Amino acid sequence: MSTQTLIKPYVIGLDLGGTNSVFGIVDARGDIKATTAIKTQGYETVEDYVAASVEALQVIIDQVGGLETIKAMGIGAPNANYYRGTIEQAPNIVWGKGIVPLADLFSKALGIPVAMTNDANAAAIGEMTYGVARGMKNFIMITLGTGVGSGVVVNGQLVYGSDGFAGELGHVTMVREGGRTCGCGRTGCLEAYCSATGVARTAREMLANSEKPSLLRDLDPEAITSLDVSIAAGKGDEIANEIFQFTGKMLGEACADFATFSSPEAFVFFGGLTKAGELIMKPIRDAYDAHVLNIFKEKAQFLVSSLEGSSAAVLGASALGWDIR
Amino acid sequence: MSTQTLIKPYVIGLDLGGTNSVFGIVDARGDIKATTAIKTQGYETVEDYVAASVEALQVIIDQVGGLETIKAMGIGAPNANYYRGTIEQAPNIVWGKGIVPLADLFSKALGIPVAMTNDANAAAIGEMTYGVARGMKNFIMITLGTGVGSGVVVNGQLVYGSDGFAGELGHVTMVREGGRTCGCGRTGCLEAYCSATGVARTAREMLANSEKPSLLRDLDPEAITSLDVSIAAGKGDEIANEIFQFTGKMLGEACADFATFSSPEAFVFFGGLTKAGELIMKPIRDAYDAHVLNIFKEKAQFLVSSLEGSSAAVLGASALGWDIR
Repeated sequence: MSTQTLIKPYVIGLDLGGTNSVFGIVDARGDIKATTAIKTQGYETVEDYVAASVEALQVIIDQVGGLETIKAMGIGAPNANYYRGTIEQAPNIVWGKGIVPLADLFSKALGIPVAMTNDANAAAIGEMTYGVARGMKNFIMITLGTGVGSGVVVNGQLVYGSDGFAGELGHVTMVREGGRTCGCGRTGCLEAYCSATGVARTAREMLANSEKPSLLRDLDPEAITSLDVSIAAGKGDEIANEIFQFTGKMLGEACADFATFSSPEAFVFFGGLTKAGELIMKPIRDAYDAHVLNIFKEKAQFLVSSLEGSSAAVLGASALGWDIR
Repeated sequence: MSTQTLIKPYVIGLDLGGTNSVFGIVDARGDIKATTAIKTQGYETVEDYVAASVEALQVIIDQVGGLETIKAMGIGAPNANYYRGTIEQAPNIVWGKGIVPLADLFSKALGIPVAMTNDANAAAIGEMTYGVARGMKNFIMITLGTGVGSGVVVNGQLVYGSDGFAGELGHVTMVREGGRTCGCGRTGCLEAYCSATGVARTAREMLANSEKPSLLRDLDPEAITSLDVSIAAGKGDEIANEIFQFTGKMLGEACADFATFSSPEAFVFFGGLTKAGELIMKPIRDAYDAHVLNIFKEKAQFLVSSLEGSSAAVLGASALGWDIR
């Protein structure tokens, strides 16, 4: 028999969302070898959730050659604390109230090391491990989804801060007087303008405050998505383009502020809004160039994630597994 | 004779200012064993400046037992680039135009390793090595002087960013519409409000826009300092107190934004304005508590530097020397 120095070729990634929990077994190049999924909310207690997860996982673990081939597991989850391996006060998960030691529970059930962080931090590690940020030591990941999330990498390390919760750039205050109410209970946050719901709100406001014709007027104002805006803008719709100008300007100005902090070599964007391509990326870059401090001008790249939509979160989570000491 | 594993007990610190260059030889506890100084601007070329520095240094090096007792040298200087050991485009230093390889020149002249960074970063390392941030892995240093500088520490490391210029939090935009012009050529920067000149300008504006009596009205409006404001506020002067309220509110709101980035365990303040004590620190804390994201509430300490005024910069610079690999 061989010694215990066998290289374990795989890590498990878990993208724990409000609806689905998607598992993948991933190799060092970012190829997903096998996947499975369970419903996140189908369980009363975290113990039941972990038991069901392990049962589903066992099938794909066997497919890749058994537990001996698995180095570790990484989890991307809302309200996750990296230092403690806990989900804390997650409002949208039945079994997520209080402080839930999820990393520990999985580690005991599977017998492998488990690390956990929030989705945006996992995305940043995913980009650094498999994506467009490979080889970068200083970059900022910005995820544009239901919320605006961020993961900050400094000196090749994710910034978790003193408490494990650092990197909440979606809650930087962009409008100090009369700003929109944010989901966090404060006003004027970047997220209140540049999340999916923020963009939809911008659309409603611009449509209401203008007489211009727009393809967006044919849609239910409450259900407008950034995809709708993107399609309309692609057809030359003026208001749709103004929405991207407004959103991109705010993101670019925010990035100019972020540059003063860590002078990143790149900002990496992920999420639905990035599907609009140059319609959103150009206003971001233009606003950044117009606002950034002179010494930082023309230094940072503006990139869009190269990881494919549905698997990106699993890849991001899995990447955490490679780093466990 | 002994082997080459002798512990070298001292480092040299150089606080390179626009007027004076102050040198100190410092031990591991932060005791300054000997000091000397030369005029920064008395030399046409950097070579002459370094030669004069070394001549002055030789005297105090001999006092502490010769060059064998010196481990390294650290320099805190304006427009300093840590990665390259250069002063770049320093507008206020005669020999500082272009890109000046100062660390290299000192290293060759003295035969010891030399590291250099800007004054605020040096201050952060000084606090971490000898001051109130000893043992902290995540904190933000904010220096309130002629400008507003900052040094960010994450995971026990100073954040230099991709280019060596990170940590310019004085140039975060606090007022997006109609903000004051800043020395950097942009508008609305934190520095335009909370630097010494920013506070003086606030004083002039408040005096001009109010009919209230104030001790500050007896002073030349162009020459008001934060010390004047502090003295007046200490005597209960209403306008002087409003100036601190305004300044502290902006600093506290800025710190609330900074927390989203690196969730520091402390903000450490240094500089003239901190002499006002609770008159300025209380408004900072109050604004921070009112504005910070819920998950960060009541986590960060607000501290004032414990390093003594004139020697703090030398200590900060010297601290760089201990870290040279």
